[in-house]
Amino acid sequence: MYKLLNVDGRAKRAQVHTVHGIVETPVFMNVGTAGAIKGAVSSMDLKEIKCQVELSNTYHLHVRPGDEVIKQLGGLHKFMVWDRPILTDSGGFQVFSLSGLRKIKEEGVYFSSHVDGRKIFMGPEESMQIQSNIASTIAMAFDECAPYPATREYMQNSVDRTTRWLKRCKSEMKRLNSLEDTINKKQMLFGINQGGTYADIRIEHAKVISELDLDGYAVGGLAVGESHDEMYRILDEAVPYLPQDKPTYLMGVGTPINILESVERGVDFFDCVYPARNGRHGHVYTNFGKHNLWNAKFKLDDRPIEEGCQCPTCKHYSRAYIRHLLKAKEMLGMRLCVLHNLYFYNTLMEEIRDAIDKNQYKEYKNSKIENMLQ
Amino acid sequence: MYKLLNVDGRAKRAQVHTVHGIVETPVFMNVGTAGAIKGAVSSMDLKEIKCQVELSNTYHLHVRPGDEVIKQLGGLHKFMVWDRPILTDSGGFQVFSLSGLRKIKEEGVYFSSHVDGRKIFMGPEESMQIQSNIASTIAMAFDECAPYPATREYMQNSVDRTTRWLKRCKSEMKRLNSLEDTINKKQMLFGINQGGTYADIRIEHAKVISELDLDGYAVGGLAVGESHDEMYRILDEAVPYLPQDKPTYLMGVGTPINILESVERGVDFFDCVYPARNGRHGHVYTNFGKHNLWNAKFKLDDRPIEEGCQCPTCKHYSRAYIRHLLKAKEMLGMRLCVLHNLYFYNTLMEEIRDAIDKNQYKEYKNSKIENMLQ
Repeated sequence: MYKLLNVDGRAKRAQVHTVHGIVETPVFMNVGTAGAIKGAVSSMDLKEIKCQVELSNTYHLHVRPGDEVIKQLGGLHKFMVWDRPILTDSGGFQVFSLSGLRKIKEEGVYFSSHVDGRKIFMGPEESMQIQSNIASTIAMAFDECAPYPATREYMQNSVDRTTRWLKRCKSEMKRLNSLEDTINKKQMLFGINQGGTYADIRIEHAKVISELDLDGYAVGGLAVGESHDEMYRILDEAVPYLPQDKPTYLMGVGTPINILESVERGVDFFDCVYPARNGRHGHVYTNFGKHNLWNAKFKLDDRPIEEGCQCPTCKHYSRAYIRHLLKAKEMLGMRLCVLHNLYFYNTLMEEIRDAIDKNQYKEYKNSKIENMLQ
Repeated sequence: MYKLLNVDGRAKRAQVHTVHGIVETPVFMNVGTAGAIKGAVSSMDLKEIKCQVELSNTYHLHVRPGDEVIKQLGGLHKFMVWDRPILTDSGGFQVFSLSGLRKIKEEGVYFSSHVDGRKIFMGPEESMQIQSNIASTIAMAFDECAPYPATREYMQNSVDRTTRWLKRCKSEMKRLNSLEDTINKKQMLFGINQGGTYADIRIEHAKVISELDLDGYAVGGLAVGESHDEMYRILDEAVPYLPQDKPTYLMGVGTPINILESVERGVDFFDCVYPARNGRHGHVYTNFGKHNLWNAKFKLDDRPIEEGCQCPTCKHYSRAYIRHLLKAKEMLGMRLCVLHNLYFYNTLMEEIRDAIDKNQYKEYKNSKIENMLQ
């Protein structure tokens, strides 16, 4: 259930009620691909850094440890010890980006596992079954994330098939949620808008899928190579055709500035590997731009990454110490940077919600971006 | 200051008063080579897993980030944010085991850095200066850890030089502790007994160094290739010649059983990389033997590593989850195993102290070892 609390311009401030608790939006979901956040961050840490929703990847969990294993162990919440919402992707993106030889057919996709090369088939029904076994709070529809750039003809065919697949996802999810031994019988389903940078295809698709009355709608197939301006243009054009009274999720995006710009365009769910990946490389976010802690200028710098930051890293450790850990290849260095970066993103979202609550989103966004670009 | 609380057989139960607080012995020091415990364990974690003394390696810190850097940042306590005792080794062991070409002379050792190959000289004075810059609570004397096996003649010459070096260490430490800009002016110095498996050389050396009235005495040069029985025999022979009213530290030892046997022989300080290294490989300790969490039999095992264990890992996570993390190469898997193993060691020491307090050490030890060998 989506409860719209306020609208400021086109920025939405809402609550999403789920079987695993309420999500305050706009929200950034913290990515734990294989049921753990890379950088030795545990589910206990996630609570400390203000994470609301954990996102795991269906394809990875299907391959290892196997969704049947997770089901036998009581579902992903119990397995990773996380009682708040979890969103799983459909597996489609990884099938298209990670796997070897693949063949797209009407029934689904044939591909080979990136772990052991064995042949796997995944279609809408299989994706729903796997996600039902994982028992996430929110399942994503199985779609094709078309390559960029793609011809208009390719894109139209792809989007049409994605629509047919979406209807199959909806039916299968309904069936699964009614089965006796399904762990989460209230699993939600989000549809995905596709169409690349062809605004008219996006809009037509958005209209069609909106009629399916799903629990939420994602904008997929962006941040795949197009410019930021193109991405914002597509959001400007397509988001108004997605239901206002449902969550709007921009998949795989992005930088703090991308998020600030997209919230203004009506997006309220985000996820991205940047904060964890950058953290592992010693690149840390502050409200005044990013730092590369490998830089020699931090050798004797006994300040925290950001003065006043209340994250578990900044409350205790200095830039000089973290730089030393990174150089000495101590895993702790990566962990401290990842904790800081995720806390930074989760805190940014808190500020964003606060600004929308106060009807000051535009001013907030402009001054925030100005500081970050300093 | 060493306050002997109880003696049970030859097992000692004491308190060591330091400028960074009291150490309850017998104690296991947790090894954080480069100022951090491998496995993404922070100084905050160390408090949670009941660590009393952190041990860092002088050679590593001298090479990176440099002891001068640590001094400028206020010493290792401030650098790594740890307010309890720290013991640093002398750097000698790493010079002999890690570095490339080396030459031992009366003045000290010439060797090449394992990081960049540059030539370094380290003698007793240099070791004390570096440890004074690091500002550890307890500094170790610079000695030669002779190779195993060594001829009697080699060993006698080596031990004689180690005695001469020890006197120079003592003088230099006294001088450094009196300097205005020394961070820890109450830095303690432990001497090191050597002599390999030659009991008479060990005993003679123990008598000579005991006269120097140092803050504590270590038994070095064991656990370098000799059998456990030989090690216990040497402890039986040499420890009685070290001062009873000072800490007795068995360097680099060992397994839980090694520790249980050595406490019975009068040892009260230990350190070893085993718990952290084994943890990183998914080998975890329990009171009923070790488990290899990579083993397929844990695939669906939803029990903690050890039932009833109060460590941060066992309080939340299952064997099945940790096994999955290890297989998925998630750093979190290593972290959870290392936290458990260090907690296991620190808890073992707590039990040992309790048993000595109650004059039940022998019974405790026998039943503990019997369980572990099950």
